[in-house]
Amino acid sequence: MKVGIIGLGLIGGSLGLDLKGQGIEVVGVSLRENTCNIAIKKGVVNDASIDLGILKNTDVVIICTPVEAIASTLKSIIPYLNPDTVVTDVGSVKASVVKNCSSLWPNFVGGHPMAGTAQQGIEAAQRNLFENAAYVLTPIESTPLEVIQKVEKIALSVGGKIYICSPEIHDRAVALISHLPVMISAGLIKSCMMEKDEKVLNLAKNLASSGFRDTSRVGGGNVELGLMMAKYNRQELLFSLQQYRQNLDEIITQIEDKNWHELEQILKASQKARPDFLN
Amino acid sequence: MKVGIIGLGLIGGSLGLDLKGQGIEVVGVSLRENTCNIAIKKGVVNDASIDLGILKNTDVVIICTPVEAIASTLKSIIPYLNPDTVVTDVGSVKASVVKNCSSLWPNFVGGHPMAGTAQQGIEAAQRNLFENAAYVLTPIESTPLEVIQKVEKIALSVGGKIYICSPEIHDRAVALISHLPVMISAGLIKSCMMEKDEKVLNLAKNLASSGFRDTSRVGGGNVELGLMMAKYNRQELLFSLQQYRQNLDEIITQIEDKNWHELEQILKASQKARPDFLN
Repeated sequence: MKVGIIGLGLIGGSLGLDLKGQGIEVVGVSLRENTCNIAIKKGVVNDASIDLGILKNTDVVIICTPVEAIASTLKSIIPYLNPDTVVTDVGSVKASVVKNCSSLWPNFVGGHPMAGTAQQGIEAAQRNLFENAAYVLTPIESTPLEVIQKVEKIALSVGGKIYICSPEIHDRAVALISHLPVMISAGLIKSCMMEKDEKVLNLAKNLASSGFRDTSRVGGGNVELGLMMAKYNRQELLFSLQQYRQNLDEIITQIEDKNWHELEQILKASQKARPDFLN
Repeated sequence: MKVGIIGLGLIGGSLGLDLKGQGIEVVGVSLRENTCNIAIKKGVVNDASIDLGILKNTDVVIICTPVEAIASTLKSIIPYLNPDTVVTDVGSVKASVVKNCSSLWPNFVGGHPMAGTAQQGIEAAQRNLFENAAYVLTPIESTPLEVIQKVEKIALSVGGKIYICSPEIHDRAVALISHLPVMISAGLIKSCMMEKDEKVLNLAKNLASSGFRDTSRVGGGNVELGLMMAKYNRQELLFSLQQYRQNLDEIITQIEDKNWHELEQILKASQKARPDFLN
């Protein structure tokens, strides 16, 4: 088997390390010559190039570019693919990507390996990054079964826990547990920043501890990632945000009306439900 | 010096361990005989009793009960205090507590050592819990200087970093960085719980990872603590919640209107501001 990886960052690089480690022939494509050289040196790929011609005769191509570049990347590589080459991606939103890519290339199935580190780029690539991490595949009705199976096999081989669902179900789920938290959390930091009383602001800065640190972490994180979620999962994120605002309004109302029993029920239900979302 | 500690839980017990370790005579009061016995055995106190008479001739009394019991506890111990006995508390809200307690006992100054662990109760008491933790003192205009100095000395002796401010400034600051995050975070869990599509809900439960875990932690935590914040810091919390809702609405509007540049500015500002709140 020959696998092509386009975009040699943390995800692409880590996939390369694992697949090459299995004895699979891996070729890489990057926009930058320097990244290609590092990838070869680091053992991420057998060979890498800024030239798409390197993808000739690949059985599977994994597009690991940022979400906004996935469909255009697929378009540009089509001249180099065999008719039965399977293409997948690793983007963290799926509906729009899958819609565009499936119409360009029927042997496409969307993928989302949910692994990462605080670091990025080829230098951060590591073995076993996907071990025990969720790896979502999002076929549509027209996706050939053997295409799904081929990508599933690769995902399993790097240790991923496979989930198969529609692109829409994926996008709603990640809106809830990944994209909504970013906006909620950014709003918290904004509220703290906007405090007008210097004394309160300075004391808040000094007193903030683990509760603030944890609740604000994803909102104070990667800007491009937050922007990508909003742009490419806009509708599902907005839906989650509207629902969230209703829940927040209910909490505010209970506090305003001193409905302590109701507030207690909300807090108890939250305490009880949270472990279901922790693996 | 003789110090009395009322309420031998995590905070009271840990204060006892540190103070007794300095050679100070420490007596404890608990509602339960069993807790008194454990406190004596554990070396938290020299002696402990369910009888308030044990507080006779104490120089300082530290009330470590839940917030709602602080003022009534002070009222009940007054018959046992010398006129110059200094009283302080460790409650995490201050304006209402200080108002009530200062009118009952002029030699009172509010305190808030901001330390804790996930465990509670006398069994969780530990040495050096307050080492490098913020310890806020909240005197009012009528608080005698020597009362502040006496409690400050104790707080410094257990390793606390002293902040002195009015009860109101304290309550506004903790509303922002401690109480607001709890409600924001509870709202997130509620939004996830309320997802009606079983497929989305199940996938969300399986895909939730560190982003959800961190953002939901304080909202899925101690119910009594959350309720206490809402009850006893109600006005400041409501003020923070209203401001937060405005910020959230702004984020929603930017996403609705596809104002990506503005959203990017919000996320960049959040990323930039967050480290100021992390010590």
